[in-house]
Amino acid sequence: MSTAPRQLSLNAFIYPSGHHEAAWRHPASTPDRLYDVKYYQEIGRTAEAAKLDAVFFADGPALRVNVKHNAASGLEPITLLTAIATATTHLGLIATASTTYYEPYNLARLFSTLDHISGGRAGWNIVTTATDQAAANFGLDRHPDHEERYARAREFVDAVVALWDSWEDDAIVLDPAAGIYADPERIHRIDFEGEHIRVRGPFNAPRTPQGHPVLVQAGASNEGRAFAGRYAEAIFTAHQRLSDGQTFYRDIKRQAAQFGRSPEHVKILPGLSPFIADTEAGAKQLEREFNELTVAEYGLHQLENLVGTSLRHLPLDEPVPLALFEQAGDVTDNSRSRLQVIAGIVQRERPTVRGLLHRLAGARGHRVFAGTPEQVADTIEEWFTQGAADGFNVMPPYYPGGLEVFAEQVVPILQQRGLFRTEYSGTTLRDHFGLPRPGSQFARRPALAG
Amino acid sequence: MSTAPRQLSLNAFIYPSGHHEAAWRHPASTPDRLYDVKYYQEIGRTAEAAKLDAVFFADGPALRVNVKHNAASGLEPITLLTAIATATTHLGLIATASTTYYEPYNLARLFSTLDHISGGRAGWNIVTTATDQAAANFGLDRHPDHEERYARAREFVDAVVALWDSWEDDAIVLDPAAGIYADPERIHRIDFEGEHIRVRGPFNAPRTPQGHPVLVQAGASNEGRAFAGRYAEAIFTAHQRLSDGQTFYRDIKRQAAQFGRSPEHVKILPGLSPFIADTEAGAKQLEREFNELTVAEYGLHQLENLVGTSLRHLPLDEPVPLALFEQAGDVTDNSRSRLQVIAGIVQRERPTVRGLLHRLAGARGHRVFAGTPEQVADTIEEWFTQGAADGFNVMPPYYPGGLEVFAEQVVPILQQRGLFRTEYSGTTLRDHFGLPRPGSQFARRPALAG
Repeated sequence: MSTAPRQLSLNAFIYPSGHHEAAWRHPASTPDRLYDVKYYQEIGRTAEAAKLDAVFFADGPALRVNVKHNAASGLEPITLLTAIATATTHLGLIATASTTYYEPYNLARLFSTLDHISGGRAGWNIVTTATDQAAANFGLDRHPDHEERYARAREFVDAVVALWDSWEDDAIVLDPAAGIYADPERIHRIDFEGEHIRVRGPFNAPRTPQGHPVLVQAGASNEGRAFAGRYAEAIFTAHQRLSDGQTFYRDIKRQAAQFGRSPEHVKILPGLSPFIADTEAGAKQLEREFNELTVAEYGLHQLENLVGTSLRHLPLDEPVPLALFEQAGDVTDNSRSRLQVIAGIVQRERPTVRGLLHRLAGARGHRVFAGTPEQVADTIEEWFTQGAADGFNVMPPYYPGGLEVFAEQVVPILQQRGLFRTEYSGTTLRDHFGLPRPGSQFARRPALAG
Repeated sequence: MSTAPRQLSLNAFIYPSGHHEAAWRHPASTPDRLYDVKYYQEIGRTAEAAKLDAVFFADGPALRVNVKHNAASGLEPITLLTAIATATTHLGLIATASTTYYEPYNLARLFSTLDHISGGRAGWNIVTTATDQAAANFGLDRHPDHEERYARAREFVDAVVALWDSWEDDAIVLDPAAGIYADPERIHRIDFEGEHIRVRGPFNAPRTPQGHPVLVQAGASNEGRAFAGRYAEAIFTAHQRLSDGQTFYRDIKRQAAQFGRSPEHVKILPGLSPFIADTEAGAKQLEREFNELTVAEYGLHQLENLVGTSLRHLPLDEPVPLALFEQAGDVTDNSRSRLQVIAGIVQRERPTVRGLLHRLAGARGHRVFAGTPEQVADTIEEWFTQGAADGFNVMPPYYPGGLEVFAEQVVPILQQRGLFRTEYSGTTLRDHFGLPRPGSQFARRPALAG
């Protein structure tokens, strides 16, 4: 064993009342607190006390959840993470934001400010957002197609990173006696001219503590994997089986290498939603309790959103038709990845519609695991050591208790096994993930702006 | 005297090292802390301890300040105010954001989240942004003209307010036993279809504690005043003389009445940048100290930005040519208002170029006043009681000390005179400004979305 054994990365994926869709109905959750900032700050403190790498928010600019039957929170995640930043000192802070429905200069500023305010703890989960509900909130009749979204996404990320690089690290001189605040030779226009994006710059803030926020992505299509291989420093993914996780892991590491990057600098973090109890039977009983609180109408609606066709005609206690997943239209990579996972479940297990809805109620296609703290630690260790994961995006079925039990009962086992830190070794998200701090692409180039 | 005498509103307008352009060179400022969130949180706490109504940030999506000679901070203000929100309990939080360079759905979310997180303390200073530097950061060669910007701004504000109203106040049912989280009949699509803006909705978060954030504006052109009369609940303005303030005040209150609004629900808050010392001579000496730290090249550059033409040829010790302000092109209302103020100074006082630069160094055309705490309180009282102001946007020449001296020495005098609160009477910015909480425009309308 080397002196610095490979360490797990663990994020807490925050979801309103928990990742199980019926969590808000269970007495273990507190759905009356979803608009109370202290609720999120307490979750952040729990994650930090357990030395987790980061907390993470999904996001999309539309009301998609059927709020009749589920507790939604559409609070804007960068703002929310700022509030968590002020209640913590080390915890990483990762927000999802869309390259299709934002302007690069605005988004670059929001993440840059979060990185400054938090002392270098920001991460951006880059998504392209493929729903017509979002498109309709931005003056479009339909969402742009897959290829166009990715073409814009590549330009968007290039422009945003260039903006973040616009001030070289030593641009601020701060010499009051001479009257020189900054050196204009070290502040650069970016003059970005793409097919979809044009941004001149320079940016209006200095480089951030991390150089720039960590780039995160969730991609499963060929285009998504190539995008991830090129840009992503961490990847959120969904796999039900070890073998699928291993295949994905190998492919992404290979693609990163093809782009000249070190495979170690792309962290692969599958989702894992653990029901935890003192006995395996108790954990499975807890999962059943939550499943029994689901509303079939809600689950069908969510599945319809995913596959893009009406499912109201399906009898709940008949097997799911195998053909269902052959007709899925243009969807996000995240949705595509989950559709593949669901298709696999249907083919292998031939569940009834109700049975499938229960499977999906846990974490929308992500892996649900019910077991003792020891068993949860075992499966984490297995995926980590068998080439399927560099860590996990932990998706507690209910908040705040589901994170607390993971923090208090699973994390110590992982620490005892030497797989997870007992103290933070650094203060930035890059430190936690073991990622290098990038230099500015403009360093030592002639200045373009005076 | 009535039982509830009319009360002043006082905001602290936060500016990196202070409003005087040479503040960062003066030992009273701390320009090394501009990217330290605690600096802004401490300013917020000082403002709250003095029971001020709010803190306020200007903003624009471009690097415009010549950072060679001045300390800039382009941190994104909504994010920054979120951090201040978590360090305070009552203080209002007002951020500037552009209707020309944002998308309504994204901006509505940021302000809604700030209002939720702060328990009802958010305000939006609506600007249209007329600089080519900003345009170039959003794929445009030139900024849209005045009329087009205002046409978009009207639609933008209508769409954003409709999004904020999208969930009626009682939309959340929260009945876990019945499995009903929200009532879809009380959540509305907005179906906004303008010439510039199309947004379908519904919004993805409930109404905020204030109903919606306070709408603030800074308009001086005819179009800007009409916009203010129609929408603004508070107006930031710039006047050097009482008589100009009175004329503006009467005009805006009249326009608000024409739109069927109560004139009391439009607060008019001129800028005031006070140099404060124990004696008048000491205060004027302090102002001179700051003026002597200015860099003429910087001041000329700022003035060029305002008038839109090169001024490098002007001899510093000759009088300013009167023709200079006849050639100003299309500028923001904020700039227009300041240009009018500057033209007035030039006509009345015939200063040299250097003299004018010193006059402008204080607060970019806003009123600078040097005097004792008693004299500062006197001028505030005069403008407040003589129909020129409902309060002030206080612009300390240097931070943090310039706000501290105002809070510790001027505010108590205003309190003793019964002009300013000694305790907050409410918890929201609307409470402080004495503004009503608006109802949702969709209340009792048939639902458009299921």
